[in-house]
Amino acid sequence: MDYGEKALAAHKEWNGKLETVSKSPVKDRDALSIAYTPGVAEPCKVIAKDKKEAYTYTMKANTVAVVSDGSAVLGLGNIGPYAAMPVMEGKCVLFKEFGNVNAVPICLDTQDTEEIIATVKNIAPAFGGINLEDISAPRCFEIEERLKEMLDIPVFHDDQHGTAIVVLAGIINALKVTGKQKETCKVVVNGAGSAGIAITKLLLTYGFKHVTMCDRQGIIGKDYPDLNWMQQKMTEVTNLENAHGTLADALKGADIFVGVSAPNIVSAEMVSSMNKDAILFAMANPTPEIMPDIAKAAGAKVVGTGRSDFPNQVNNVVAFPGIFKGALEGRASRITEEMKLAAAEAIAALVSDEELNEDFIMPEAFDPRVAEVVSNAVKSHIHA
Amino acid sequence: MDYGEKALAAHKEWNGKLETVSKSPVKDRDALSIAYTPGVAEPCKVIAKDKKEAYTYTMKANTVAVVSDGSAVLGLGNIGPYAAMPVMEGKCVLFKEFGNVNAVPICLDTQDTEEIIATVKNIAPAFGGINLEDISAPRCFEIEERLKEMLDIPVFHDDQHGTAIVVLAGIINALKVTGKQKETCKVVVNGAGSAGIAITKLLLTYGFKHVTMCDRQGIIGKDYPDLNWMQQKMTEVTNLENAHGTLADALKGADIFVGVSAPNIVSAEMVSSMNKDAILFAMANPTPEIMPDIAKAAGAKVVGTGRSDFPNQVNNVVAFPGIFKGALEGRASRITEEMKLAAAEAIAALVSDEELNEDFIMPEAFDPRVAEVVSNAVKSHIHA
Repeated sequence: MDYGEKALAAHKEWNGKLETVSKSPVKDRDALSIAYTPGVAEPCKVIAKDKKEAYTYTMKANTVAVVSDGSAVLGLGNIGPYAAMPVMEGKCVLFKEFGNVNAVPICLDTQDTEEIIATVKNIAPAFGGINLEDISAPRCFEIEERLKEMLDIPVFHDDQHGTAIVVLAGIINALKVTGKQKETCKVVVNGAGSAGIAITKLLLTYGFKHVTMCDRQGIIGKDYPDLNWMQQKMTEVTNLENAHGTLADALKGADIFVGVSAPNIVSAEMVSSMNKDAILFAMANPTPEIMPDIAKAAGAKVVGTGRSDFPNQVNNVVAFPGIFKGALEGRASRITEEMKLAAAEAIAALVSDEELNEDFIMPEAFDPRVAEVVSNAVKSHIHA
Repeated sequence: MDYGEKALAAHKEWNGKLETVSKSPVKDRDALSIAYTPGVAEPCKVIAKDKKEAYTYTMKANTVAVVSDGSAVLGLGNIGPYAAMPVMEGKCVLFKEFGNVNAVPICLDTQDTEEIIATVKNIAPAFGGINLEDISAPRCFEIEERLKEMLDIPVFHDDQHGTAIVVLAGIINALKVTGKQKETCKVVVNGAGSAGIAITKLLLTYGFKHVTMCDRQGIIGKDYPDLNWMQQKMTEVTNLENAHGTLADALKGADIFVGVSAPNIVSAEMVSSMNKDAILFAMANPTPEIMPDIAKAAGAKVVGTGRSDFPNQVNNVVAFPGIFKGALEGRASRITEEMKLAAAEAIAALVSDEELNEDFIMPEAFDPRVAEVVSNAVKSHIHA
């Protein structure tokens, strides 16, 4: 199916994929006097005394802002805030459809780090959470870290953490299928942008000991040129033996490859050079780093991609709606590392031992249980 | 009915009066691929080439941001952004219910003029219009003027212009009932905040020649102490004879009183001192400047208030939904004075000559024709 053409026609017909709808129809004067003046003054007064009551009386309780500056949208790059709108609206649709969370697209007319931080801080009162989206690295790291410090609501950059959670979920199940141990696995993450860095961090937090990051020029180490501050920081916890070389060098004897990079950059030879029962997550879109059939023929045991037409799709939609659903329901002030690990484990656990095999390590995106179990996992790690 | 108690219970049950709803349910992979990746890239690309296409493919076409800093909320004063939420959500409900316009509450965690301007400018791309709400004077004037200069979408401070439009609509019909002429009428506007100033401006634009503004200390003139910059500016076009004195002095021989001030500050004696067939809009809420029965007994011909339990309710809801509906449908870049006058005349014209009498000068708030005729009036004054 030509999705592009269909999408264009559908978007024109929708003229906005999202709408705001009243839960309190005002069909007569009494209804108006309750939803608006004079009655509305009463909840206002209660919240004026204790702002936490906004969670009881307003949509803050269940509403997320999906914030982007349009600087790194899908595979389209820096297309700006207007062109980013269809993606952000789409994200909002997924929040509601998969997690029953209200979401509002906020596309920013600035790509200045300080202005973005100030703007998001200023609009935060109406929202129960901030989902940062498609903001380019390394600005996304500073923006997220600073906002987390400033705000008392969860701030979550989905391109980083949503992706990392879903990859970890897949890897947890891939380890079961292959019998590999996290402590001894050698992992290569190719792509040192927001997703690659977040995946690496979460794998280390989960207990992997040997992770090497690569980018276009090869293995990243302490003496690698032109690293941004976050990549620099990552060299303290990755590539501990300070190896040098190409991606092909990195993959020799590796157990796991995670690609968030570019199409067709992994060859059959590289896969053959990996350890037995290699695990590959080749998530470049729409064309993966290596096609699954080629990887399998070269000896890979488990192959995941970003695509729905291959087995083992790695799709953020199994993570972010449930993450925010749980955080909002539990009134979490932040999404912690514990919550991310719990979410990944909950997603992995949805595939039963009977179902689990090399071609079925991830629950389906449309599995109706997903958001609920992720939400519960998050909630169980909220400490008052 | 005790609206306060009912409102508190209802707001708790709603837990947000507004929700975001998807117009594109994603029940299967094809639907997901059209509303989101990969299909969504297509409308993104079209908008990247011409940002105006955002009106074709996104909710910008029909969505307003209702922006407040919580500094001047209803009669509650400076209660801050959290406590302002129920009012802003209520406003959004009215936008949708009366005008079929999507609206999103944006409550700002700043009361700094420059920060408010920068924040609204930064979030503008996702919206087709900005409705400023409950921002205290005189900051509201600068914020609105500066944003109008910066943005290519309508910016409208409803406390000013919505109120002014509805008052003018009422006055147009009150003139018909009393046979008075705008050119010769003496008008007294009591209250020199955002509403009083906007009403005065619009009455002058409409063609009134003699308007005097008063506030707590009496008649405002050039030598009046402690005027803010906008009040200062108003002294150039009001009280041209440079009168001094109290509100009681101002009302002697006046034809029209417009109060946006405080309860019970107009006495029967003051009304008796006005010209024959006096017109009073006593809009202090919930207790008017003078109760209608007292004013009538003292010789007033037409009395309007802000209350729904008296005749001639002056209610912004007959203006703002239709104003934005028309501006959005016509893709206006601003709301002009012409549009405001046309809206007031359209509202007034909804009361037919047969219906028109001293106790029926305003269409009902729930008159289903209102938003449509206001919208058409606005659209007829959009110039390409």
